Amino acid sequence: MLPTKTPQETIAVTTKVVLPNDTNTLGNLFGGQLLAWMDEIASVSAHRHSQRICVTASINHVAFKNPIRMAEIVTLEAKVTRSFSSSMEVYIDVFVEDYHAGTRTKCNEAIFTFVAVDQRGNPIQVPLIMPETEEERQRYDGALRRRQLSLILAGKMKADDATELKALFIK
Amino acid sequence: MLPTKTPQETIAVTTKVVLPNDTNTLGNLFGGQLLAWMDEIASVSAHRHSQRICVTASINHVAFKNPIRMAEIVTLEAKVTRSFSSSMEVYIDVFVEDYHAGTRTKCNEAIFTFVAVDQRGNPIQVPLIMPETEEERQRYDGALRRRQLSLILAGKMKADDATELKALFIK
Amino acid sequence: MLPTKTPQETIAVTTKVVLPNDTNTLGNLFGGQLLAWMDEIASVSAHRHSQRICVTASINHVAFKNPIRMAEIVTLEAKVTRSFSSSMEVYIDVFVEDYHAGTRTKCNEAIFTFVAVDQRGNPIQVPLIMPETEEERQRYDGALRRRQLSLILAGKMKADDATELKALFIK
Amino acid sequence: MLPTKTPQETIAVTTKVVLPNDTNTLGNLFGGQLLAWMDEIASVSAHRHSQRICVTASINHVAFKNPIRMAEIVTLEAKVTRSFSSSMEVYIDVFVEDYHAGTRTKCNEAIFTFVAVDQRGNPIQVPLIMPETEEERQRYDGALRRRQLSLILAGKMKADDATELKALFIK
Amino acid sequence: MLPTKTPQETIAVTTKVVLPNDTNTLGNLFGGQLLAWMDEIASVSAHRHSQRICVTASINHVAFKNPIRMAEIVTLEAKVTRSFSSSMEVYIDVFVEDYHAGTRTKCNEAIFTFVAVDQRGNPIQVPLIMPETEEERQRYDGALRRRQLSLILAGKMKADDATELKALFIK
Amino acid sequence: MLPTKTPQETIAVTTKVVLPNDTNTLGNLFGGQLLAWMDEIASVSAHRHSQRICVTASINHVAFKNPIRMAEIVTLEAKVTRSFSSSMEVYIDVFVEDYHAGTRTKCNEAIFTFVAVDQRGNPIQVPLIMPETEEERQRYDGALRRRQLSLILAGKMKADDATELKALFIK
Repeated sequence: MLPTKTPQETIAVTTKVVLPNDTNTLGNLFGGQLLAWMDEIASVSAHRHSQRICVTASINHVAFKNPIRMAEIVTLEAKVTRSFSSSMEVYIDVFVEDYHAGTRTKCNEAIFTFVAVDQRGNPIQVPLIMPETEEERQRYDGALRRRQLSLILAGKMKADDATELKALFIK
Repeated sequence: MLPTKTPQETIAVTTKVVLPNDTNTLGNLFGGQLLAWMDEIASVSAHRHSQRICVTASINHVAFKNPIRMAEIVTLEAKVTRSFSSSMEVYIDVFVEDYHAGTRTKCNEAIFTFVAVDQRGNPIQVPLIMPETEEERQRYDGALRRRQLSLILAGKMKADDATELKALFIK
Repeated sequence: MLPTKTPQETIAVTTKVVLPNDTNTLGNLFGGQLLAWMDEIASVSAHRHSQRICVTASINHVAFKNPIRMAEIVTLEAKVTRSFSSSMEVYIDVFVEDYHAGTRTKCNEAIFTFVAVDQRGNPIQVPLIMPETEEERQRYDGALRRRQLSLILAGKMKADDATELKALFIK
Repeated sequence: MLPTKTPQETIAVTTKVVLPNDTNTLGNLFGGQLLAWMDEIASVSAHRHSQRICVTASINHVAFKNPIRMAEIVTLEAKVTRSFSSSMEVYIDVFVEDYHAGTRTKCNEAIFTFVAVDQRGNPIQVPLIMPETEEERQRYDGALRRRQLSLILAGKMKADDATELKALFIK
Repeated sequence: MLPTKTPQETIAVTTKVVLPNDTNTLGNLFGGQLLAWMDEIASVSAHRHSQRICVTASINHVAFKNPIRMAEIVTLEAKVTRSFSSSMEVYIDVFVEDYHAGTRTKCNEAIFTFVAVDQRGNPIQVPLIMPETEEERQRYDGALRRRQLSLILAGKMKADDATELKALFIK
Repeated sequence: MLPTKTPQETIAVTTKVVLPNDTNTLGNLFGGQLLAWMDEIASVSAHRHSQRICVTASINHVAFKNPIRMAEIVTLEAKVTRSFSSSMEVYIDVFVEDYHAGTRTKCNEAIFTFVAVDQRGNPIQVPLIMPETEEERQRYDGALRRRQLSLILAGKMKADDATELKALFIK
């Protein structure tokens, strides 16, 4: 049987300086570049959870709240929130540091889903996740609702069967 | 008053060859690279709709159905599905061509939201969209539900007020 | 026997935003970057004509008429104008969009020649081209003169045998 | 009056290793990458001649004779062959080294034209070229014929007035 | 007076996946790419110490012990070891993870020196470092000897005055 | 027996224009980018000496004296100074050209060490170096002291046995 892991064991961190090469025509970090950074660090987190080749399956949500400017220091932290058979939901929190004070502020977050595969590209089972902190538990619970929503949108589940998701709308 | 545009007027197309530079360690197109391509072409579509600077606001959904292999020819088509004041939802359809037969197959789709801004980065109103084809109408209707879902997830709308979205769960 | 194709069947389009990464020190699109984009999209057009691996054989002519500035949207359209045994001449038209009005203007054109090869890199025959529009017919006729000129410059044809090319000079 | 320079004073050399990043799907140097390298080193040669900002005006001819393979060492040598008022023709010779013997072979050549501009982008006069070697003299003479051909193709000169070019066809 | 900081407060971490784009012709991480990664993360550490613009002043030592292979996950950790007026010595430890077991091994280390500058590029004083752990103290002591060596090599100090360094050779 | 070579036979030169893509947030050439260029051209020099696959073993010293600005033309010259069994010390001199006068000034220098390996990655012997000029002889002599220093720092040699290095401190 596969071992259970904690989100903490799957954490992956990367820090970048926004260089001219990474900016759009307003001098802000190009959205596509941030997405590429998110995908890379989230795949490391999924790999640390599964020790397998992990491929991006879907992006559930990314919100770009505040523009990130050239020369700013950006840190991305990725953690697996929950696993389902061969798939893993990964949360990515993005922080930017104030250039002079050094204080860091959360500026974006994103949710990606990865699938672990074997050498032939077939899905393979991954360990379960055991959340520890309050935030980890909330994200763990939300992951099920997000999964139901994905399955409905993909036409693979009926809205009626999405018990956890329905509870959001019917009290 | 701003003019109304059709989705057809906002179409933006780009075709790429998957080069070694774009591949992950399985020899498939790197997810992060595809996201960066999607963001670039979707921003062109949003610009063609608004004639303004457009910045990525959120990614509502991306599904990576089939891996795209090195040397394959990939075409991305982006179209604005609906606008809301200063924001625009853009659909991106991704097609891959069979190397020998030349037939093309849809392999991915994604939904991005952009906001039009003025030179100071403040949101600015954009034209309305008037869907023409059946598919355009379906995506136009879905855009409202996806927007309600985004607002709920961001804590800016109560589930009870999301009339169109609730209709999915309560008949 | 290989089928005949029309130029229209070989069209390949790509649209780019000029990012800081693509500019020279005057803030204009770097010539070498535009050449790399031309080569990529022209190879797609040659592949759509031949359904074979296509390698760049020569560049007959590229004229850089007007500088393209950062943030502008550039569209490249490539079409096969004529084929000769295993080689194909590809025309690339480059358009730039006015940032505010959205009108597009042709700013550059280029002519590349590709050769279709098999897995071992040996030349292999490709379909013939049947031009349809007036412009396609003019480019089809010009392709023969350009080919004669190339062969003369490479020392593979005598000027006396270049009947079509000579006609330009002797009436 | 502007000084006269020799081609030797304008020479610019660059040596590259073909990395995975530079290869097409056959494992050979990507044509578009080689073009970008040519454009960069040719602009250095034009700058050494003129001490001005130089922008690519046209590519007269590039022939890709032999594929260049990954890991091979490639040297590009650029030299101004002739100047015309504000424009300069630059020849680029490309050499590849045998990996084990170290002997180098010429594998490609290209002809680019650059224009020297002032800070506002207006053309500005450049020094004349005084060829010294036999090869330099041949390229100097050929430059005039190539210029006439360019002007005819651009519709800026009548074939009848291209005296030097006509001489190739009428004896 | 500038505050004193601990090395721990200056730590900067980045994690990368070695992609095809990053490899040399043996399929290993390209040395030049690793150096660029080191420089970026070390500059973040120097910035966290000084809250100033930091420019690379010198590289004292980098040893490439074991090749890092494609697809491996690499983590770089940078920490300021000691500061001298406006300059900071930064240590970078590089770790690679076993793909299947997930255990990480140190594979490289490097020592860079940065200088903090103001907006005009003039050197500006930075906080002192107060080492805490045994390793931090050893690196703090070694930093002085390395600085003396640098000054001797640059001809800015006589060997006789390098008291700490001499002690290595004369007992 | 392997032949002896002169440093002159191992020279490798590359010339670059500093593009926006290569600059840090001050508009100067990014240190990490210059390191990557140094590593590439030094590996060509090591290959010209050994005709073998050469991998970066260590960087002994790099000093960044003056910032290099965007649009400047940079030339790197690499030469093998001395070889030790399978390893080669390579000196890289970096020059920048005055944009208007064209005069060139040395702005940086670096010392890298490479190891020649066979197809399996095992070290393999390389030719000896026979210095010719006065500068080549000085660098040849210094190479031995730098090697002793490296071995001491790596714990592979006792300070007492580093005869040539000790002579710097004890007269």
